[in-house]
Amino acid sequence: MRIVSGMRPTGKLHLGHYLGVLKNWVALQESHDCHFFVADWHALSTSYEDKLNLKELGRDLVKEWIAAGIDPAKSTLFVQSAIKEHAELYVLLNMITPLGWLERNPTYKDQLSQMEHKDIHTAGFLTYPVLQAADILLYGADMVPIGEDQKPHLEITREIVRRFHHLFACEVFKEPKEMLTETSRLPGLDGRKMSKSYNNAIYLSDTPEEVWEKLRRAKTDPQRVRRNDPGDPDVCLVFDYHKALTEDAVVQKIDADCRAGTIGCVDCKKICAQSIEKVLEPIRERRAKLDDATIDEVIQKGNEAAHAEAARTMERANDAVFEISCHP
Amino acid sequence: MRIVSGMRPTGKLHLGHYLGVLKNWVALQESHDCHFFVADWHALSTSYEDKLNLKELGRDLVKEWIAAGIDPAKSTLFVQSAIKEHAELYVLLNMITPLGWLERNPTYKDQLSQMEHKDIHTAGFLTYPVLQAADILLYGADMVPIGEDQKPHLEITREIVRRFHHLFACEVFKEPKEMLTETSRLPGLDGRKMSKSYNNAIYLSDTPEEVWEKLRRAKTDPQRVRRNDPGDPDVCLVFDYHKALTEDAVVQKIDADCRAGTIGCVDCKKICAQSIEKVLEPIRERRAKLDDATIDEVIQKGNEAAHAEAARTMERANDAVFEISCHP
Repeated sequence: MRIVSGMRPTGKLHLGHYLGVLKNWVALQESHDCHFFVADWHALSTSYEDKLNLKELGRDLVKEWIAAGIDPAKSTLFVQSAIKEHAELYVLLNMITPLGWLERNPTYKDQLSQMEHKDIHTAGFLTYPVLQAADILLYGADMVPIGEDQKPHLEITREIVRRFHHLFACEVFKEPKEMLTETSRLPGLDGRKMSKSYNNAIYLSDTPEEVWEKLRRAKTDPQRVRRNDPGDPDVCLVFDYHKALTEDAVVQKIDADCRAGTIGCVDCKKICAQSIEKVLEPIRERRAKLDDATIDEVIQKGNEAAHAEAARTMERANDAVFEISCHP
Repeated sequence: MRIVSGMRPTGKLHLGHYLGVLKNWVALQESHDCHFFVADWHALSTSYEDKLNLKELGRDLVKEWIAAGIDPAKSTLFVQSAIKEHAELYVLLNMITPLGWLERNPTYKDQLSQMEHKDIHTAGFLTYPVLQAADILLYGADMVPIGEDQKPHLEITREIVRRFHHLFACEVFKEPKEMLTETSRLPGLDGRKMSKSYNNAIYLSDTPEEVWEKLRRAKTDPQRVRRNDPGDPDVCLVFDYHKALTEDAVVQKIDADCRAGTIGCVDCKKICAQSIEKVLEPIRERRAKLDDATIDEVIQKGNEAAHAEAARTMERANDAVFEISCHP
């Protein structure tokens, strides 16, 4: 089963990325044929004004993936903008994609209102589900791991496939299925969504000291004033972290001890820091062994493999479109 | 001075194409460095439902160009969809192109209402001025030969250039100027615009017999019933053809003789047929010497030359966008 998934290179990764996406990728590569790509063209669609060095950020991203446990021997890792076929298929698919499908996409409207501080009323942002369709279809993905909010996008991909097959009377592509991933949404240190822009994130590259400094200052149950006061884990951010990262038996004990007032917030946070270290320590160790040249090599090999596949798909697509000749 | 211009491969060429575009191209190649391309992706934007074999139509088009006097030794002839960089630059430019520029484009609105029989409410049709910008910018065109109706498109190209240079702080592209071409608009045989879809065209591939049969049946001054009746050239379609194709002295004589009733419509049409033959005969002769293999070779050579240039431009554009590194 072929999986295709991408990530935008917009800066260093945090625990939210790890628990929300990367941990799942690491598990998937054991049982699936995975293609993971640096979505640098997609990054431009919302960050074209930000003067990001996407080349470096892309390399950093792949380094983080490998540090987090993605294995280039098992998965194909590549950079979207290095594979011109994504652009080529995007042109073809744009020609047949009704504007209404894109304009009525609920995610499009949501994002326009959420990103009011950015000028994303652009042709690229409106059509990015078409570029996403190209990303998926070039590699014949069976499944695409997505969150609930991306369901409309994948539905657009499937609609484009059906329209292409109908118009050119040829079944060139595979209709991808969604793989809804149940991910623990880890909130940021202020309770909002974990995000670089909110300055509330614990990064995969943080040192143990940095992690502790962030945790130490995190708010817990505001009703709990003295160490012996009973606390309410349900309103405590640190408890959310425990649920996501600490083993179940310990979580239950913390829950009970907090309610009984027999564990203080500092001790509770120390256990939490240990749980975070269990994630970050091996990542840190693997990262220390990676240099840029190794990453560039991984990317080059991945690009070559991806390009060969994409070119084969594109040939069949072009035959169908330009020569009305079908090789399904 | 570099010129870039394209034509859609949607079927055989007629006299209107010759007088409106090709004759101008043939003249331009003597004094300018010309790039002429088969706009097959653009053809898709309005004809994606028509199951055209654009590969064959593209080859036929280049054959007609050469038959009409375009010289592959002087001009670079290539096929748009063979140069992936057009798609690549289109992706980049879409990212920075405000939707409003495309939606407010007067040509866009005109065409939507003119082509009501076609479903062109697509992402590709809305964004085709962006693809056109890519076509022009990849080859550093100084001038683009256009008609009055295409002025808004070229203005969008220039606006995109300025926005790109501003956003990425790097002058990668040349701002193309318009070369407004004064072309004699030859009406079709029924007085409407000459067009395949109106079935009113004289094709560059018509035989002398076909031309005569079409001319013979063309309506002249409806008030003129008998051969000796005075006629009014100003309301006569055949006289429009004379003005476009017959030498001035003869046109003046025909004008006088028609008004005096001393030349009959059949004789007048015979002179017109000769004028048309003066255009078609050399085209016919050159075409007879061209085979598909020769055309394919011309296209392959042109594609290679175009690709090398496009790749160089794209490298500078990608450096500016992905590495914030400027090589103007």
